[in-house]
Amino acid sequence: MAALKLHGFFNSSASYRVRIALGLKGLPWEHVGVNIRTGVQNGAGYKALNPAGLVPTLEDGSARITQSLAIIDYLERLQPAPRLVPEGGTERNRVLEIASLIACDIHPLNNLRVLKTLTGSLGVSDAQKNDWYLNWITQGFDALEAWLSDEGDFCVGDAPTLADCCLVPQVANAQRMKVDLSAYPRILRINDQCLRLAAFADAAPNRQPDFVAG
Amino acid sequence: MAALKLHGFFNSSASYRVRIALGLKGLPWEHVGVNIRTGVQNGAGYKALNPAGLVPTLEDGSARITQSLAIIDYLERLQPAPRLVPEGGTERNRVLEIASLIACDIHPLNNLRVLKTLTGSLGVSDAQKNDWYLNWITQGFDALEAWLSDEGDFCVGDAPTLADCCLVPQVANAQRMKVDLSAYPRILRINDQCLRLAAFADAAPNRQPDFVAG
Repeated sequence: MAALKLHGFFNSSASYRVRIALGLKGLPWEHVGVNIRTGVQNGAGYKALNPAGLVPTLEDGSARITQSLAIIDYLERLQPAPRLVPEGGTERNRVLEIASLIACDIHPLNNLRVLKTLTGSLGVSDAQKNDWYLNWITQGFDALEAWLSDEGDFCVGDAPTLADCCLVPQVANAQRMKVDLSAYPRILRINDQCLRLAAFADAAPNRQPDFVAG
Repeated sequence: MAALKLHGFFNSSASYRVRIALGLKGLPWEHVGVNIRTGVQNGAGYKALNPAGLVPTLEDGSARITQSLAIIDYLERLQPAPRLVPEGGTERNRVLEIASLIACDIHPLNNLRVLKTLTGSLGVSDAQKNDWYLNWITQGFDALEAWLSDEGDFCVGDAPTLADCCLVPQVANAQRMKVDLSAYPRILRINDQCLRLAAFADAAPNRQPDFVAG
């Protein structure tokens, strides 16, 4: 198998989700850094790969797949074991609900391009930006905490799923923004348990070759 | 089969996606209006059904499924024909990419709760709010237009898919915001062709029992 190339950024939550999935499936891959702080994602070179100018993009030979959830679905077909989305039943419903809650209703409102737009063209203050960030985390995590149970190492069932691939990067993002997460003991417990696994730990931002502290 | 109940709102794009999918699959369903303009979604009654306080929620007997993409996945299992997500290959990749582009990178930034937050607690002007809306439509639709082809009635392949279920409500939303879409002839062509089908036409906001003009 030719090595998979993941065009991403160490601090991108969407890239981080895919890195976890690659690790859980034991697929070898190569990191290609796309510095979204300096705008590389909007250059013609990257846009030829991904017209949306967003990270990540997976390159597999001549195939290019964008959007983290679509990429993880592709990886699920490439290497079906271990399954990250249960085949059916209520567990499948819940995994997909959690993935959507994070990937549609929390993260897109709180990512770098949005925060930059708020403080840039909209002229919003840093305090207002932080309130905005906290608001979407609170709404989303309140719902997620209600869905999780008091026991168990993972969001759904007894093995990592797509839900955990989405949760851990979102927790890291909130911690980076210094959000107090003490109201979410279930989320914190699952996050801690996941990070004991190599696939999650190795996918962390500070383990990536393009990592820059601060 | 007990009738499916869809708790939604006529103007909610996420509800509209599910209505189209229900129609394409020929599943009987019952509309339960949740007025997100007056805040019904944040009341205890609705939150018992969906702790995220978002529409839509599908009720199927004792099962409750939230998140439009998770609901459509559930419907795909309940009634596999016609398939809305191709079983594999590049068509599956593209359908999921388009669904994510719209459901993660355009719509969550432009929905009612976000626009209300901008003009409310952030004190943004109406003109700035409209620029914000247009910015995310432009970034997303530029990418989508590049992915679509000059021919064909649907986003991917020769039958409606999940991609079209997401596209048509997003176009309706942009048109409601009076966005000039003339730069997107492929998007407009596909939207027009979809709306010739009863499943799309019947799902339109103005065909729902809770519709209010203006």
